[in-house]
Amino acid sequence: MLPSLKGGFVLDSRLDADSEHVIWLGLCELRLMDDRRWPWVLLVPQRPGIEEVHDLTPLDQAMLTFETNMVAQALKRVTGCTKINTGALGNMVRQLHVHVVARSEGDPNWPGPVWGHGLRESYSREALHRFAETLKAAL
Amino acid sequence: MLPSLKGGFVLDSRLDADSEHVIWLGLCELRLMDDRRWPWVLLVPQRPGIEEVHDLTPLDQAMLTFETNMVAQALKRVTGCTKINTGALGNMVRQLHVHVVARSEGDPNWPGPVWGHGLRESYSREALHRFAETLKAAL
Repeated sequence: MLPSLKGGFVLDSRLDADSEHVIWLGLCELRLMDDRRWPWVLLVPQRPGIEEVHDLTPLDQAMLTFETNMVAQALKRVTGCTKINTGALGNMVRQLHVHVVARSEGDPNWPGPVWGHGLRESYSREALHRFAETLKAAL
Repeated sequence: MLPSLKGGFVLDSRLDADSEHVIWLGLCELRLMDDRRWPWVLLVPQRPGIEEVHDLTPLDQAMLTFETNMVAQALKRVTGCTKINTGALGNMVRQLHVHVVARSEGDPNWPGPVWGHGLRESYSREALHRFAETLKAAL
């Protein structure tokens, strides 16, 4: 995939490798993590050189909040999950990205976090695209 | 400590036991996690019955974003940490609370998450109060 050139922004190569494009929101690219253990998406603000949420402008912070919550609500609706987990860590990949994960009792590592747990399990291409389409339709 | 009665809101007993009051912000109570392994605070919106960020009103979502980022910036400044980690999980304690954690290379479980890692290590009362005062002064 060609990197986005929106305002000099280029998606981190590890985020690119681990996830699949779903849709462009106003500020963020929404991407689906290619890990079928949990319904898990990433929001990546299209701003170059930003590592912390508090380094975004106040307007971008408000946009990120709005987009994150819209996505969280849609993910909860389509999965029927028990709890949404959101997080912005960035200890490994420094480019700012926000995780939104649908969690339910009995899922891998419940009630612990998804980060750092075991190994990623890829979807089939068909299942990945189907889930991306379901998400897009719910937004 | 007496529970807050602000609009029928009562702090969850586990959050109360694991953390110490720092300051009241506009929407949230800021609390310091009593775990000296990482500089770690919680923001607890004073709204009864809320489990997900997206269940807050749009105004409260904006306030939570503003207060979270103000606290994150202050925590980064006073600790000189490498990376702020924020998260809203709530798989164990359902009352909405946002974690803001100062992370640095070589800290326990770096670059993995703080959640679900090992056992909490309490501060001495003196060190806990000193850190709470430092944080308050930085806000």
